Amino acid sequence: MTDRALPSLSELDPSGSFAARHIGSRPDETAEMLAVVGFDSLDALVDATVPEDVRDRTPLALPPAADEAAVLAQLRERAAANEVYTSMIGLGYHGTLTPAVIQRNILENPAWYTAYTPYQPEISQGRLEALLNFQTMVADLTGLPVAGASMLDEATAAAEAMTLVRRAGRAKADAVFVVDADTLPQTLAVLETRADPLGIRLHVADLSGGWPADLPEAGAFGVLLSYPGASGAVRDHRALAAAAHDAGAAVVVAADLLALTLLEAPGEWGADVAVGTTQRFGVPLGYGGPHAGYLSVRESMARQLPGRLVGVSVDADGDVAYRLALQTREQHIRREKATSNICTAQVLLAVMAGAYAVYHGAEGLTEIAARVHRSAQALAGWLTDGGLELVHAEYFDTLAVRVPGRAAEVVAAAAARRINLWQVDDDVVQVACDETTTPAVLRAVAESFGVAAGELPGGGADALPAQLRRTTPFLTHPVFTVHRSETELMRYLRALSDKDLALDRTMIPLGSCTMKLNSAVEMAAITWPEFAHLHPFAPAEQARGYRQLIDELCADLAEITGYAAVSVQPNAGSQGEFAGLLAIHRYHRSRGDEQRDVCLIPSSAHGTNAASAVMAGFRVVVVACDDAGNVDLGDLRAKIEQHAERLAAIMLTYPSTHGVFETEVQEICAAVHDAGGQVYVDGANLNAMVGLARPGRFGSDVSHLNLHKTFCIPHGGGGPGVGPIGVADHLVPFLPGHPLAETGGQGPAVSGAPWGSAGILPISWAYLRLMGPDGLKQATEHAILTANYVAARLREHFPVLYTGATGLVAHECILDIRPLTKATGITNDDIAKRLIDFGFHAPTMSFPVAGTLMVEPTESEDKGEIDRFVEAMATIRAEIEKVATGEYDRGDNPLRNAPHTLAMVAGEWERPYPRSVAVHPVPGLVGRSYLSPVRRIDQAYGDRHLVCACPSPEAFAEPDPAEVAADLDGGRTPSRAESAPDDRGTTEDVVRV
Amino acid sequence: MTDRALPSLSELDPSGSFAARHIGSRPDETAEMLAVVGFDSLDALVDATVPEDVRDRTPLALPPAADEAAVLAQLRERAAANEVYTSMIGLGYHGTLTPAVIQRNILENPAWYTAYTPYQPEISQGRLEALLNFQTMVADLTGLPVAGASMLDEATAAAEAMTLVRRAGRAKADAVFVVDADTLPQTLAVLETRADPLGIRLHVADLSGGWPADLPEAGAFGVLLSYPGASGAVRDHRALAAAAHDAGAAVVVAADLLALTLLEAPGEWGADVAVGTTQRFGVPLGYGGPHAGYLSVRESMARQLPGRLVGVSVDADGDVAYRLALQTREQHIRREKATSNICTAQVLLAVMAGAYAVYHGAEGLTEIAARVHRSAQALAGWLTDGGLELVHAEYFDTLAVRVPGRAAEVVAAAAARRINLWQVDDDVVQVACDETTTPAVLRAVAESFGVAAGELPGGGADALPAQLRRTTPFLTHPVFTVHRSETELMRYLRALSDKDLALDRTMIPLGSCTMKLNSAVEMAAITWPEFAHLHPFAPAEQARGYRQLIDELCADLAEITGYAAVSVQPNAGSQGEFAGLLAIHRYHRSRGDEQRDVCLIPSSAHGTNAASAVMAGFRVVVVACDDAGNVDLGDLRAKIEQHAERLAAIMLTYPSTHGVFETEVQEICAAVHDAGGQVYVDGANLNAMVGLARPGRFGSDVSHLNLHKTFCIPHGGGGPGVGPIGVADHLVPFLPGHPLAETGGQGPAVSGAPWGSAGILPISWAYLRLMGPDGLKQATEHAILTANYVAARLREHFPVLYTGATGLVAHECILDIRPLTKATGITNDDIAKRLIDFGFHAPTMSFPVAGTLMVEPTESEDKGEIDRFVEAMATIRAEIEKVATGEYDRGDNPLRNAPHTLAMVAGEWERPYPRSVAVHPVPGLVGRSYLSPVRRIDQAYGDRHLVCACPSPEAFAEPDPAEVAADLDGGRTPSRAESAPDDRGTTEDVVRV
Repeated sequence: MTDRALPSLSELDPSGSFAARHIGSRPDETAEMLAVVGFDSLDALVDATVPEDVRDRTPLALPPAADEAAVLAQLRERAAANEVYTSMIGLGYHGTLTPAVIQRNILENPAWYTAYTPYQPEISQGRLEALLNFQTMVADLTGLPVAGASMLDEATAAAEAMTLVRRAGRAKADAVFVVDADTLPQTLAVLETRADPLGIRLHVADLSGGWPADLPEAGAFGVLLSYPGASGAVRDHRALAAAAHDAGAAVVVAADLLALTLLEAPGEWGADVAVGTTQRFGVPLGYGGPHAGYLSVRESMARQLPGRLVGVSVDADGDVAYRLALQTREQHIRREKATSNICTAQVLLAVMAGAYAVYHGAEGLTEIAARVHRSAQALAGWLTDGGLELVHAEYFDTLAVRVPGRAAEVVAAAAARRINLWQVDDDVVQVACDETTTPAVLRAVAESFGVAAGELPGGGADALPAQLRRTTPFLTHPVFTVHRSETELMRYLRALSDKDLALDRTMIPLGSCTMKLNSAVEMAAITWPEFAHLHPFAPAEQARGYRQLIDELCADLAEITGYAAVSVQPNAGSQGEFAGLLAIHRYHRSRGDEQRDVCLIPSSAHGTNAASAVMAGFRVVVVACDDAGNVDLGDLRAKIEQHAERLAAIMLTYPSTHGVFETEVQEICAAVHDAGGQVYVDGANLNAMVGLARPGRFGSDVSHLNLHKTFCIPHGGGGPGVGPIGVADHLVPFLPGHPLAETGGQGPAVSGAPWGSAGILPISWAYLRLMGPDGLKQATEHAILTANYVAARLREHFPVLYTGATGLVAHECILDIRPLTKATGITNDDIAKRLIDFGFHAPTMSFPVAGTLMVEPTESEDKGEIDRFVEAMATIRAEIEKVATGEYDRGDNPLRNAPHTLAMVAGEWERPYPRSVAVHPVPGLVGRSYLSPVRRIDQAYGDRHLVCACPSPEAFAEPDPAEVAADLDGGRTPSRAESAPDDRGTTEDVVRV
Repeated sequence: MTDRALPSLSELDPSGSFAARHIGSRPDETAEMLAVVGFDSLDALVDATVPEDVRDRTPLALPPAADEAAVLAQLRERAAANEVYTSMIGLGYHGTLTPAVIQRNILENPAWYTAYTPYQPEISQGRLEALLNFQTMVADLTGLPVAGASMLDEATAAAEAMTLVRRAGRAKADAVFVVDADTLPQTLAVLETRADPLGIRLHVADLSGGWPADLPEAGAFGVLLSYPGASGAVRDHRALAAAAHDAGAAVVVAADLLALTLLEAPGEWGADVAVGTTQRFGVPLGYGGPHAGYLSVRESMARQLPGRLVGVSVDADGDVAYRLALQTREQHIRREKATSNICTAQVLLAVMAGAYAVYHGAEGLTEIAARVHRSAQALAGWLTDGGLELVHAEYFDTLAVRVPGRAAEVVAAAAARRINLWQVDDDVVQVACDETTTPAVLRAVAESFGVAAGELPGGGADALPAQLRRTTPFLTHPVFTVHRSETELMRYLRALSDKDLALDRTMIPLGSCTMKLNSAVEMAAITWPEFAHLHPFAPAEQARGYRQLIDELCADLAEITGYAAVSVQPNAGSQGEFAGLLAIHRYHRSRGDEQRDVCLIPSSAHGTNAASAVMAGFRVVVVACDDAGNVDLGDLRAKIEQHAERLAAIMLTYPSTHGVFETEVQEICAAVHDAGGQVYVDGANLNAMVGLARPGRFGSDVSHLNLHKTFCIPHGGGGPGVGPIGVADHLVPFLPGHPLAETGGQGPAVSGAPWGSAGILPISWAYLRLMGPDGLKQATEHAILTANYVAARLREHFPVLYTGATGLVAHECILDIRPLTKATGITNDDIAKRLIDFGFHAPTMSFPVAGTLMVEPTESEDKGEIDRFVEAMATIRAEIEKVATGEYDRGDNPLRNAPHTLAMVAGEWERPYPRSVAVHPVPGLVGRSYLSPVRRIDQAYGDRHLVCACPSPEAFAEPDPAEVAADLDGGRTPSRAESAPDDRGTTEDVVRV
């Protein structure tokens, strides 16, 4: 700018500047990449890549881009429109004190929040250990030895438990699931949502009198008890549990972990399964989420556990190492019926809750629980002294107070003191204490009841059932003892994160996972008190900022996808699939088309698609794909014809899971519509379409989106995921509703919280505002460019599978390793592990095609990083060549021995290549190596069932004789190796069927 | 708690819980450590350690401890009492947009903010590189090739420049320093403060008419010009510079770095020195600081540069490596007159400003400057169209607008729009634009002037002098080009910080530097907008929260120290020393005791003491110490008698720099007082006294405190420091004042900002509130315990020097390495470097005694970490033994070769010990090694002057013949090796004389 006149002020408008920060490449790099791909402009590349008949050239009608400061100012406006009252609503959501050391060093630290799901265990030892802490915490407190890490929320965990005990037991097909009436209303709602399509009948009853006498003849396969109950009552369920067992029913207990520090563990008194939330262990309320749910089971049920389970294994040196321990066997049994599509976890929140337990230890947690209980008791004393009656004499933290005819008045009096209580009905108010409850708050509550507060009582008896006093120890592992100072915890967290590779150190080129930038400004607002500390059931007028933000986000997403409306309630991609298919299901039912129960799914689809379809009450019929990975139109027409009147829907992924823009998508949609079916387009690959094509306009009726992929919510090491759904006009009435809040939808609730993971929606909102319509389109174009650049650069080293009609890929590309494997024995796993020595995370392995690697660079990687990746892959290719020529031994070479550790290179060395080749295979790594903390982890050690995989859709198909052959053709759509990455962003690992 | 009744609610009060997090050891560990030291209680240990006659058993009258949530709530109250207006005051402080990626990944990241000064260059390569970026940025923009990293603020940088050109030139002793009248008022004030005690006369004049004709006969040794001026005027100073040079005066230019992207660099048109601030490069206003000042010079003046200079060197392999490049020669010349006590830098802020330049690059900075300029121009157009007159037609960002008689009215009208303008006098208002200035703000400003805003103008001519248009390129190094995406910058920052060791990974056992926990909750508030975005000259009613917090902090510090009042203006320990001594100087003067100019300083004192004394107008007389490091009372009495009427003060450190509570301190104080002198107690070691003893009560009249040591402000990699002073009643009138704000003091300004580094005072405030009086006392007791535990454990391996009368140390202990060095050639430097292989930062080296290591564990380290340190030292001792026995070669052993790098262990290896000994000397390191990114750095490479040292106090003494012998006895109080750590916390490296 020194040689010319200064630009005018309007030319210097900084409002579009963020897009240039989000998009990795500078203009000169973009030009260089385009030249390699063979185009002279992004427009030309996009025109050649995106088929004209899906292309939508109408500009996105979104707010214009704004710079960081302006977006933060807008967020502060919305934050200021929220009112943070002291929340004593309870009902599964409690105030909690997030230790600042945890907030700063986990929740606000990109080393944790940009990490991916730990499918590559060698570079995930830190978060695997953190999750093992979480599991140990849950197992210890619930007294059930096997706990996963983690569930989406308490309500869906309860639903998973229901189906788990159903498939684990031997009850009759029409046995019911008994639910204690004293259950959280949102849990009850989600149970109903989940039970209905599976044909499970719920039997909701007041169980305080004992096991119900009015069960149907088939009896019950399980019962859900709450401990404490939704009303706050702490009941002794032991007799009930025994009766249930006698009746052949498994016992599921929804338990509050904090209460369990004082109360005997459910596992000690008969529970087979425990479920709940870990929110109050330091995870902000966030207007409903995200929080980590938990589920723990008796040892005998370990194999039935849905979701992720971290296990201990050993590495090649026999040293202890962590990994995801997931058994594949389930996919081979019961394939006739999927009962869970659970994929993602709430890793970031589970890590926080686990760290909270590590920081407080058993003693600290018990003190917190005692304080909470004593607070409730002090209030109870004042209230009863004032002549009020408690509904339950035995409670932990929640009082149900009888105020005949005055409930609304009391709640209003508390609200005037900026305290939220819960009005159960006209005559009863509930008050839940938590660790944030101060004596001043207790006094204000007493005043609200019209009662004098008096002095704080001294010690004396507590209000817990004496026979339920906890006697079993918990959190006895040293990790829960030694990190008691902030310095120690800070260093522990740093040491853990240093073991892992996340986006803050390297590209994570995972196909279909869209590991793009999670910018600091997008993350800024989620820890502001006005967003962090709202209870999901707070009165709407206290959440005006949230509601405005959510409405704006939904409107923007609807504009981007071309749908009529969007619901943000599904708190993971899998939940979005379920919610979207359920909308279709209910739509057909509303029209009397109850017989429409066939869901067509191409063989190339993401594994969860089929599971979700079964959960939504559909039969899965697989549609073949051609050699290019595209839907076989002939087979599609045949299947439509075959199922005709029973056709409910087709689930498509677009661009396809093979990373290609199929040209016949409109034709497919039309064919299904003509037959009366609905079209579901999986939004997993939306990052290739934003600003270029809208599924709602090229023929789709419903999609789920992955805010944690396309819209910048970080993967968090394997969650949270956020999976909103967009639907066409006729499906709007079937969007998710909620028993306790007006969400705008009238359909069944799919998540515990009305707006799902509301607390992190500011991230996606900020991304859209920062990028603006032009920036979003540019991002998509650059995503397409980087993928094609990778394909162009790597084509000389590895065959690139599945390019579109124009020889181009969409936003990801598949490298075929199979010929090399055949020739040399070197597998894609070896390549993945060798990439660790280069400091790179592996691409997606063996999905959608076994023996391949799928690379998605995203728009956020610059050419420099991509070129380093290409250099690594080329170097690896040359190493494979040395195996091929015999220069390297087939079993003892840098690929097979990868990853290399410091202990290896500092120890004895008799390998046929020097140490420097091990750790410095290219010169650029000197001085900046990442070293794996462990050697390659033995996936078969100990438990032989430690290989997990996402089942192919065929696994879910009805055993239609005509399809058995295809069904058994495992080679076409392979199971995925344990180390295969996410098909749902963070929302994926294994489907238990 | 499971076996007994629950405690009552009051017993469960969590308000004191923070102290248990801040203090590293758990109760069981405390008991174990006490047993090793030989006491059965902390009380007993403290009674045995702290002499009864200094012990103060009156409990601290401070607010009680509060938990994290309560303190955050209190901070939010104070934040809410601040009003954040749009600041257009300018005067050296400008609104700026801190990129979120920089805020989160530097300012909010313990890896950066808990780091220590990079005296150990091998484990500091990341921040050294970041500082090299800063230096390059300053050098490029100012056109002067040698820039340090960094100065405390613009005003003190100008004062340093004044003394620099004085000593660099050959002017007559009574030559004056010419200052252009268009200089920032606070700069002028600090120049006056600094000039006075040194006998420098300032000649302030309007230089717009040329070089002044009315200079005294001795002429001028220098001139300070502003570019742009305080009034906003951009003048062509070229003729003036030539005239100054012709007159033998050096040219110092105070320049705005952002303006320099558009204006020709001062170095191109005659400046010898440039000074200024880098605040507007992304560093929040913070009500005045901390911000990094800069100073750059012509190559010929490089050796005169005060403060820190990072240089490029090579390591043992000849690879490029960074280090602090500081020449020692200065301490041997001109010892008769110290002119700078500058010690600390503003590293954390310099890192931020450098990262801002890295992120924006030349093009981005130029665009920002153009936008700022065009904003000012747009406003100027509207104002002149509206009939108003500009005082200066040529400007960069600041307009001086003539509004005869209406200035107050205009400022008020702007304030009503939440915009602060600057009222120069009744007739002139100044408006400063910055990168946050939006068109809406410009319009509101126009309205405030009563003028119509109209449309934004198009391009056209700018308002910069055409002949000063910049033509020289800048920021051409690739580092300023490649990190343009947020992903790239995030990874770059992570990669840099990964090279370094900070408190988030390891104990930093630096004697006298008090590297304690900087807790996340203490750090939380400093980035809140209400604290971050206030201009230091904003009207007092907008800063009520700040003023309350500052008043509370000062009151608390006064209570802790026993003084009558505290001033927070000094923004480093060295500035505190200067301010405190200046108060004594002015006190004597106020009583007509002008002849009192002798400052007694024990030979064991910190180096800066003497420099500060000289700067404050005193002659230094050294008092001898005995073999135990205590003040030699006989010599003291002799010196007092000798100087009698001229005695001004004594400067003591207590506990002594040898880490011992001397028992005769009251006697010393009394003797000095009896002779009419004042007592200055250096607060460097206050961490051993808080809650146990108060200097203001055992005889001291003034102390500076180190908030960055004792009161938890993080060291930031070598700054910011904060050095408030506390004074006795009679010195209160001499506390620092300020030309533009009511600070409560009437003395001269010592810093540019009225309350110094106000922006980080919430850290210390929070610490005091979190700990409460009991917690603070406990912290001191644990600091004493850990030091004595280290001494007890290490005594069998290394002799411990200087224990008190009871055989105990205070809060640090000195390990004598000299006998081992003599026997084996292994030095304390070898031990320091070998500790890196263990993942530890070295203790303080060769201070206060050459050839020793001084260890201060602080209260925040737990026994586990201390035991690991002890294990490392014991292992090293065993390695030294192998050198002694000849088992290891004297020149080729793990100590001499340390630190070991990955490249070493992965490369050829012909050393007499295995690689595993190099990197895994103890088993606990396997899997968690820190590896130095470089080998040992060659301190002598290239520039032979690359060894820096803090001079001993003798270096500053008047050449009193009676003292020459002692003065030349270098063995007694040695110069400090370049790698010696901080004697001022972060406030130390070298004193140029």
